[in-house]
Amino acid sequence: MSRLKDVVKGIEPINALFIKMAKERLDNLTKPQGSLGRLEGIAMQVMGITQNEHPRIEKKVIFTMAADHGVTAQGVSAYPRAVTAQMVYNFLNGGAAINVLANNAGARVVVVDMGVAENLKAHDGLIIKKIRHSTMDMSVGPAMTRQEAISSIEAGIDTSENEFNKEGMDIVGLGEMGIGNTTASAAISAILLDLPIEKLAGRGTGIDDVTYQHKIGVIKKAIRQNKPNPTDPLDVLAKVGGFEIGGMAGAMLHGASKRIPVVIDGFISGTAALLAYQIEPAVRDYMIASHCSPEKGHKVILDHLGLEPLLDLHMRLGEGTGAALAFNIIEASIKILTQMATFQDAGVSRSKIV
Amino acid sequence: MSRLKDVVKGIEPINALFIKMAKERLDNLTKPQGSLGRLEGIAMQVMGITQNEHPRIEKKVIFTMAADHGVTAQGVSAYPRAVTAQMVYNFLNGGAAINVLANNAGARVVVVDMGVAENLKAHDGLIIKKIRHSTMDMSVGPAMTRQEAISSIEAGIDTSENEFNKEGMDIVGLGEMGIGNTTASAAISAILLDLPIEKLAGRGTGIDDVTYQHKIGVIKKAIRQNKPNPTDPLDVLAKVGGFEIGGMAGAMLHGASKRIPVVIDGFISGTAALLAYQIEPAVRDYMIASHCSPEKGHKVILDHLGLEPLLDLHMRLGEGTGAALAFNIIEASIKILTQMATFQDAGVSRSKIV
Repeated sequence: MSRLKDVVKGIEPINALFIKMAKERLDNLTKPQGSLGRLEGIAMQVMGITQNEHPRIEKKVIFTMAADHGVTAQGVSAYPRAVTAQMVYNFLNGGAAINVLANNAGARVVVVDMGVAENLKAHDGLIIKKIRHSTMDMSVGPAMTRQEAISSIEAGIDTSENEFNKEGMDIVGLGEMGIGNTTASAAISAILLDLPIEKLAGRGTGIDDVTYQHKIGVIKKAIRQNKPNPTDPLDVLAKVGGFEIGGMAGAMLHGASKRIPVVIDGFISGTAALLAYQIEPAVRDYMIASHCSPEKGHKVILDHLGLEPLLDLHMRLGEGTGAALAFNIIEASIKILTQMATFQDAGVSRSKIV
Repeated sequence: MSRLKDVVKGIEPINALFIKMAKERLDNLTKPQGSLGRLEGIAMQVMGITQNEHPRIEKKVIFTMAADHGVTAQGVSAYPRAVTAQMVYNFLNGGAAINVLANNAGARVVVVDMGVAENLKAHDGLIIKKIRHSTMDMSVGPAMTRQEAISSIEAGIDTSENEFNKEGMDIVGLGEMGIGNTTASAAISAILLDLPIEKLAGRGTGIDDVTYQHKIGVIKKAIRQNKPNPTDPLDVLAKVGGFEIGGMAGAMLHGASKRIPVVIDGFISGTAALLAYQIEPAVRDYMIASHCSPEKGHKVILDHLGLEPLLDLHMRLGEGTGAALAFNIIEASIKILTQMATFQDAGVSRSKIV
């Protein structure tokens, strides 16, 4: 817990002076003021985050954190639990969507086993931080102990810290894989936002009406059973959470403590962002929402956090795919800030005639 | 005119069989069906366009076409006319937003003088296709002759053809620079869509209320004065158009005739797309709308064309900036199609359990 406390203590507000400097520079560039829209907002935010007049987005990392969920025993998902491990191997072999999109963005994918049910074969690219072999079934008891909840967050911190120190990291995106994890995310976010389950639970990978009603019933039962304390995010994570969700929240907090832009992916990543925000609200200003998923809870969470997504491409895959796709736009924002000519440099008239 | 007719004749429908093959492949990849949303739609469209099972998006071109507008004499813009030429030099020197964003996308910018008022200094990167030194003032007479309208479209065709033959072109984006060209675009699109000017005319680079009302009055006067025939796109272009708008329409038609994806930028580029569509409706299926501008006529045009923009980042700069930003997303779509593992390759279970 002292690890988590130290990281949280290290998160400072983003720098208003640098945001102002960014705005002044943007207003001097050869374009009508504000005409690059959100690119300008992102450029200001990143300069405020990094406190750097010439921020660089070169070392780009996607953490894809995987774990299993005991609640899959209740038949809440369209895919069997074994798919979590199968997809981890797919990530390691470079065949998944996140590999393709991270590669397209010039980013590296770091795959983390946060609690996959089976023992995964060792692989150079696999970081093993397994808290346990799957959470327990939250519909019959707590998904994990409070200590495991803390450990999952701290494992995310350690993974991020290690990557930051070893390879460098200018920007980080948080993605996941875990059959059943929209169920855990709906439970966590409904409790933290004090909203009905129906507002947060969606169709996940594509369940039918009957399974959807069943999923909602299972989540309600889990909440009745465990009575998570909505003002205690660690209790909520422990009672109805997932190890990959704790891990992502930890990496987000760590990224903010290192003054790195933290890119949120889909609904599950958004749930981790909400959790991190409940632990330390200052983390929010380090966050960039990459996209909005059709999984309906995602928009609810982003609205609550006050984050406007960059993309709305109806993507609902997770893994970090939306974050990877947004990296190029964030990079573009920074290059606008650092590479465009000013009116003076270019000899372009800036005075309006009307 | 025979040049234009030949190109139009060369535009075939996109290939439904290849779209079907793309869909089958996408449904076999290791992800829930359809979970990559619009990336999958774009991948299908590009395979239908290119008739290639392994399409490549490597040679990427943005044409930035510049021209002046006689109607600026009426005080419809926030910037003086001289800015058109100044910005052309900025493009050639690499200091403008389009240079930065094209570079970020790995695309080259081809700058075309379609009718800038002043004689521009020669420059390796500048293609001179000047139809005339600025259009005439459409509020007192036709902006150009019918022959000039045809010449502007054919100059766009020739520019695209030359680039295609000389350097190769896997994808093309169409952008522009021309003080006063939102006025011309509003006039063209209002006539072609038979809608009130107020639905198409916006604030351009940022005019105040009084100037905005004046701009609308000037457009109405131009239409009264010239009586463009709404069923004859060449007449509309001649009466109230711009040389860069004709040039972009020509390059779009040419791109479609070569089975290349044609990426639309903002409102003025959208107006050129509408013009190209009125000349030959089959061009539409070759078009990808990169983004939606706050310039209000843009959405009206895209809705009419049935094109859903990929990005909505409140960008309103033109030059091809939105198109350049969208290139990375289109490339990502193609890489999903061509680089991801199938369920069989990766040994991932595809059968749903519910």
